[in-house]
Amino acid sequence: MLEALKQAVYEANMELPRRGLVTYTWGNVSGIDRETGYVIIKPSGVDYEDLTPDKLVVLDLDGNIIEGDLNPSSDTKTHLELYKAYPELGGIVHTHSPYAVGWAQAGRDIPAYGTTHADYFYGPVPCARHLTPEEVEEDYERNTGKSIIEIFTERGLNPMHVPAVICHSHGPFTWGKNPAQAVYHAVVLEEVAKMALYTTQIAPDCPPAPQHVQDKHFMRKHGPNAYYGQGKG
Amino acid sequence: MLEALKQAVYEANMELPRRGLVTYTWGNVSGIDRETGYVIIKPSGVDYEDLTPDKLVVLDLDGNIIEGDLNPSSDTKTHLELYKAYPELGGIVHTHSPYAVGWAQAGRDIPAYGTTHADYFYGPVPCARHLTPEEVEEDYERNTGKSIIEIFTERGLNPMHVPAVICHSHGPFTWGKNPAQAVYHAVVLEEVAKMALYTTQIAPDCPPAPQHVQDKHFMRKHGPNAYYGQGKG
Amino acid sequence: MLEALKQAVYEANMELPRRGLVTYTWGNVSGIDRETGYVIIKPSGVDYEDLTPDKLVVLDLDGNIIEGDLNPSSDTKTHLELYKAYPELGGIVHTHSPYAVGWAQAGRDIPAYGTTHADYFYGPVPCARHLTPEEVEEDYERNTGKSIIEIFTERGLNPMHVPAVICHSHGPFTWGKNPAQAVYHAVVLEEVAKMALYTTQIAPDCPPAPQHVQDKHFMRKHGPNAYYGQGKG
Amino acid sequence: MLEALKQAVYEANMELPRRGLVTYTWGNVSGIDRETGYVIIKPSGVDYEDLTPDKLVVLDLDGNIIEGDLNPSSDTKTHLELYKAYPELGGIVHTHSPYAVGWAQAGRDIPAYGTTHADYFYGPVPCARHLTPEEVEEDYERNTGKSIIEIFTERGLNPMHVPAVICHSHGPFTWGKNPAQAVYHAVVLEEVAKMALYTTQIAPDCPPAPQHVQDKHFMRKHGPNAYYGQGKG
Repeated sequence: MLEALKQAVYEANMELPRRGLVTYTWGNVSGIDRETGYVIIKPSGVDYEDLTPDKLVVLDLDGNIIEGDLNPSSDTKTHLELYKAYPELGGIVHTHSPYAVGWAQAGRDIPAYGTTHADYFYGPVPCARHLTPEEVEEDYERNTGKSIIEIFTERGLNPMHVPAVICHSHGPFTWGKNPAQAVYHAVVLEEVAKMALYTTQIAPDCPPAPQHVQDKHFMRKHGPNAYYGQGKG
Repeated sequence: MLEALKQAVYEANMELPRRGLVTYTWGNVSGIDRETGYVIIKPSGVDYEDLTPDKLVVLDLDGNIIEGDLNPSSDTKTHLELYKAYPELGGIVHTHSPYAVGWAQAGRDIPAYGTTHADYFYGPVPCARHLTPEEVEEDYERNTGKSIIEIFTERGLNPMHVPAVICHSHGPFTWGKNPAQAVYHAVVLEEVAKMALYTTQIAPDCPPAPQHVQDKHFMRKHGPNAYYGQGKG
Repeated sequence: MLEALKQAVYEANMELPRRGLVTYTWGNVSGIDRETGYVIIKPSGVDYEDLTPDKLVVLDLDGNIIEGDLNPSSDTKTHLELYKAYPELGGIVHTHSPYAVGWAQAGRDIPAYGTTHADYFYGPVPCARHLTPEEVEEDYERNTGKSIIEIFTERGLNPMHVPAVICHSHGPFTWGKNPAQAVYHAVVLEEVAKMALYTTQIAPDCPPAPQHVQDKHFMRKHGPNAYYGQGKG
Repeated sequence: MLEALKQAVYEANMELPRRGLVTYTWGNVSGIDRETGYVIIKPSGVDYEDLTPDKLVVLDLDGNIIEGDLNPSSDTKTHLELYKAYPELGGIVHTHSPYAVGWAQAGRDIPAYGTTHADYFYGPVPCARHLTPEEVEEDYERNTGKSIIEIFTERGLNPMHVPAVICHSHGPFTWGKNPAQAVYHAVVLEEVAKMALYTTQIAPDCPPAPQHVQDKHFMRKHGPNAYYGQGKG
């Protein structure tokens, strides 16, 4: 079932340790088939070296397991909330990559200090609020998804223009049109979080890059007249 | 004698340089067989590339050498004190991993800033006090063990809920139900110490994660209704 | 056409990921043949693992494509401006190496704190100003080149004595007598930017190295009586 | 001539890039044969990948070349001054390892914050002063050696108890009873400089480790009753 997507989700998962984004099992990638509405995700707590495509779990958007013998990632409901809210998403990644976690623990948006950031994220990467005790109690992982949607809604953000969030005291989620692009954004986010840390150390009160510079860089890669790359998208 | 444990202690020792936790000989792992009360530990000052299982030293809990031609780790008495105080411990690790040492030298507990921390350590990782000149003189390594037990007792901490300590001006000890888990906790501690450093750089007065978030994460992995992973551990 | 230069530009490009200076496609190297005035540069958005010498793009100094099926680097016009202004340049590199970007985002010159810096860069590495909205609108990449030339002119800097610049909110450009030396300077710049960050953390108000020490180090490598190395370079 | 020492100096040099202490040619190791008074040192500006034992340069303590076709390291006279002042020295290393350089550029002694430091360096690693313009002019490298000896003399330091120095705005020199031990101390110094940077970030006004702790650690490794290791060293 969905062998091509399964392979894509598998390869995207394996890219996480290769890129140095995960320690042990601290990360997961999912992908969605929009036709069936089925989501494929890493099983919970399985070592990357033991992961194979057939260990991935297939679920529907309500969280019912369609295929697979293992428990899905404990973060599954967060993924499902995001897929339900944003039909543009084809893949989602969660990691505990250390620089992004540094900002998440500090509870601060990652500022758009420069063009590396603006090439991929249009404006700061938002930091979603803490859940209340009631929200944690009721359904921690689902409400984590809701808190992400809440901040995107409040700020009027397009998730395809800002394909990342950090959750306060927790860590990053990133996404993209498919699992590979979601991982790409996870790598970019960690680089950008690192550069932003260096910048705050050099200039603690550094303002973001001027808006017209952010606009230019985002648009030359993503706007209607984009001219970065070979025109393949 | 105790060949399976010897192999486990050997493999746990070799994992330290593989995980980047030790420079030269700056680390050691021990394991205990609770039936005989025998402890197996790395010999002192032996390079990891020269280590073999038969070079490990077997001692009883009073420090008498039962087997082995080499001197045991100079930190042996610290390990023995912990094994005697805490029957749940099956393995202990000492390293000079740099981020954990950074906090130890600063004399500050590692704050529970986020869920990466709370997934493994329930509350801050305590920093044990300096020994007095008299304690150093009398028996430095044994009294180091006693100072660790002292802070766990004073704060009413369960060592299986906080399987790590940093000793002021020195460095970390971690432990677990067996040598492999003790090393796992040493790796986690170093990651958590690194993330905590980043967080203090971004937000110098950052508070810890809310208690209900810490509770949730620790309990979803370790509580009676834990649901992280595949239910095997 | 220009096969030797093409090979040199190719090898210089491939050195960037090998030295850890680029993530994904975030960098490019060009070289110039001063006889024909032709510039060879990396194509835009092509992965380094897919790069081959025949994919490089050959342009004249007005930006007309002479050879090649792919779009040249989006930063091409910046390179062309520098080649036109400075006939001594044989190669140019642009990267988003993280420490140099940290300083660029902070909008601060990289101070000449020590001899590692002074061995290659005579004085601080300047930070070129932001472009105005009009300059961005009119021709972003060409005006980036002009802003670099502007600061070198204003400060009376010899680009062969300070073979690097950082552009505010963006990142570094380096150059040299050929593509390989331009990459060498990119590596040195990143090391120097890293050391400078460490120094500001230890001593936030640290002054630069004394002028006579900077003079000595730059001159023993580059002056008329240079005595570093084997007299070949 | 002196083939065993040549091999030892060669291997010690090659250990520098393996341990990540040098970029390009930024480091050198020498060794001395105390019987003949001959010093063997890396040639200047030669890449480590091109280095072979027969390219090493043999000099007497006055700097006369006894054997070798290449120019010796530009830092040779610094090495010679130290060998002349301290007959205990068998090997000397100079690097630009980035954490040690961070402290050197800041012009601050590396504080003895913990036991990792105290295990090898008895007290802070001193930062030698800037040379005057006259000293630079007269003989930069020789006077660098003299400035190192000056601070050890002023503070009454035993160079075998503090086998390292950092030179203000420049970088570290380390030494030992032979070239291998000098490199070992270069590696330790870089680790200790890194840990000290972390500590100052966490606790900017952190005091050094208590004197009795420093004494204990240095003495258990180096004192007359040392008990670390297997009694061979």
